Amino acid sequence: MVDKKLTGAGLRGQVAGETALCTVGKSGSGLTYYGYDIKELADKVSFEEVAYLLSRGELPNATQLAEFKARLKQQRGLPQALKDVLERIPADAHPMDVMRTGCSFLGNIEPEQDFSEADAKIERMLAAFPSILLYWYRFSHDGKRIETATDDDSIGAHFLHLLHDKAPSKLHTDVMNTSLILYAEHEFNASTFTARVCASTLSDIFSCVTGAIGSLRGPLHGGANEAAMELIENMQNADDAEQQLMGMLERKEKIMGFGHAIYREFDPRNDIIKEWSEKLSQEFGDSRLYDVSVRCEEVMWREKKLFPNADFFHASAYHYMGIPTKLFTPIFVMSRVSGWTAHVKEQRANNRIIRPSADYTGPAPRPVPALADR
Amino acid sequence: MVDKKLTGAGLRGQVAGETALCTVGKSGSGLTYYGYDIKELADKVSFEEVAYLLSRGELPNATQLAEFKARLKQQRGLPQALKDVLERIPADAHPMDVMRTGCSFLGNIEPEQDFSEADAKIERMLAAFPSILLYWYRFSHDGKRIETATDDDSIGAHFLHLLHDKAPSKLHTDVMNTSLILYAEHEFNASTFTARVCASTLSDIFSCVTGAIGSLRGPLHGGANEAAMELIENMQNADDAEQQLMGMLERKEKIMGFGHAIYREFDPRNDIIKEWSEKLSQEFGDSRLYDVSVRCEEVMWREKKLFPNADFFHASAYHYMGIPTKLFTPIFVMSRVSGWTAHVKEQRANNRIIRPSADYTGPAPRPVPALADR
Repeated sequence: MVDKKLTGAGLRGQVAGETALCTVGKSGSGLTYYGYDIKELADKVSFEEVAYLLSRGELPNATQLAEFKARLKQQRGLPQALKDVLERIPADAHPMDVMRTGCSFLGNIEPEQDFSEADAKIERMLAAFPSILLYWYRFSHDGKRIETATDDDSIGAHFLHLLHDKAPSKLHTDVMNTSLILYAEHEFNASTFTARVCASTLSDIFSCVTGAIGSLRGPLHGGANEAAMELIENMQNADDAEQQLMGMLERKEKIMGFGHAIYREFDPRNDIIKEWSEKLSQEFGDSRLYDVSVRCEEVMWREKKLFPNADFFHASAYHYMGIPTKLFTPIFVMSRVSGWTAHVKEQRANNRIIRPSADYTGPAPRPVPALADR
Repeated sequence: MVDKKLTGAGLRGQVAGETALCTVGKSGSGLTYYGYDIKELADKVSFEEVAYLLSRGELPNATQLAEFKARLKQQRGLPQALKDVLERIPADAHPMDVMRTGCSFLGNIEPEQDFSEADAKIERMLAAFPSILLYWYRFSHDGKRIETATDDDSIGAHFLHLLHDKAPSKLHTDVMNTSLILYAEHEFNASTFTARVCASTLSDIFSCVTGAIGSLRGPLHGGANEAAMELIENMQNADDAEQQLMGMLERKEKIMGFGHAIYREFDPRNDIIKEWSEKLSQEFGDSRLYDVSVRCEEVMWREKKLFPNADFFHASAYHYMGIPTKLFTPIFVMSRVSGWTAHVKEQRANNRIIRPSADYTGPAPRPVPALADR
């Protein structure tokens, strides 16, 4: 067998498998989940319906949805052993390390014994991830052992409730719902591909998700909304934003939250979260971050023909809801676990172990020198 | 950009990048680390020298080796928080879940803040992994809180010492040393590729190794030596082995420990571990498992032209040293962490995020039906 040389580094543009889950940059607005356009999903359904869709291939009917949401609600509590672990993670830990460890530990005490348990474990992770994040966050930052089992109707509301110690407004609940839908699935990105490589060894689903969290942690992947926040929070107003940005462009500094590996002209998720960011800015009564973000969008397009991706207006939206910047990427985990696990199921259903080759660039064969001769 | 269709599933035979670390199935016996043949390495050097080689590209001289081993020795102790976590993992947990979680937790309390810390973190993992495994194992199985900081000269001896509560013999130390060398590195296998995908997002080294452990956990990847043990332990003698094996072949049952995805005629690691298994059987005074394994090798070649891979004689060798079967794959982790982390460094040195494409096989664009209409 002769190894085929790939044209691009990073397997860019190379087909590594099949998926029925998602198109990126193809029909309609460019992003579909099982054939449904992302804009229509964001308009019409809940994140729970999307999570169900990704896992089963079809949207739930009213009965299925009610049962699914009831199961999720029942599984928000954390076992004492997991709480003990989270209490031992310091406040200055990287929140993605917390998510990775929480998921991995859950796999010890509630393992997936058999692939027939996959759906049950997926639901457990969907329900427990906000609890894991906020149990650690509130304990390490506020010294408080919170009760993670709440009666909120949605995952987004559950998250905001645990964070702020009170049930969120309808507006905030709606924004969280939309945000979780936008981040749920995106084909063979690096974290999803990590999950599929792991799944291809027939490992358990907690291993797949733990690995995916580790990949999403990387600043080239999941950290863009946090980086966007760091960019805009120091801009005083729209004119200041323009001035700072022009300086950065002149110095050829990297500006996060713009452009995309696959999308060429726009990111279909941007308009959706941008609209919510504007509504939040009106409610908040201070539109600085929104105005600054709009100006950044204008300048980046005018100067570089670069468009904001899903992450850019998420920064201001999350900030308006009082979410600390360090929790932005973990929210991505709470959402994307639905896509990752759907890919794990798909990989298992038609599996061959993922084992590529490498071009050798090392030394020619050589004898081992004795220790004294080195 | 038109996506290129790959010929094989699982990226088989497709070049996904470059490496200077290793050749598999090419010159000499087929397996080289940085140009050194695996047989010569197994004969002449220690695992610590191999770990140093993989991490730095050259074998250490006497001073470098002494310093490297001293640093490893100093780092065998575990922080109390990590011990607390390990004590909360039940005895019936999958030992690979323990390794994955121990590694992930370590990343919280001793994070890699900067890539310049990579070598220090690699040494910490090399030193601490046997401690993590056996602290959990001895606590959960024997109820004993062991002191993990020992004065043993090598990683292999440290492992056996913690397991058996006494310093191991020279023979057992030598076998462990060889075993760790044989498992240290093997190009773009699934777990190593997992580590590289994670590294390509510029994530931290603990995330990369945590993900790799999760992939190695899969029965199609790391579990083959355990499966080989399950096969041979119920064979009473060589003739019984032949009879059982012929029956399994007739029933077309999967037989683990034979054949390989890359090697076509033999696995260069087999002769080496087979020889040690024979020596151990003589010392042990009961050659049943070795005799049975030899007959399996003969039958599989005669009937199927299949050869034993690295895993097959590892089963009897480990068993003769009193190692419980469930710890076989975690030993693989203790060794392969050297290869994984070398690949992480190599990926970082010439990086592009690994983000392949997928062929879409899902539904055509469709409108979202109202909940009542589903």
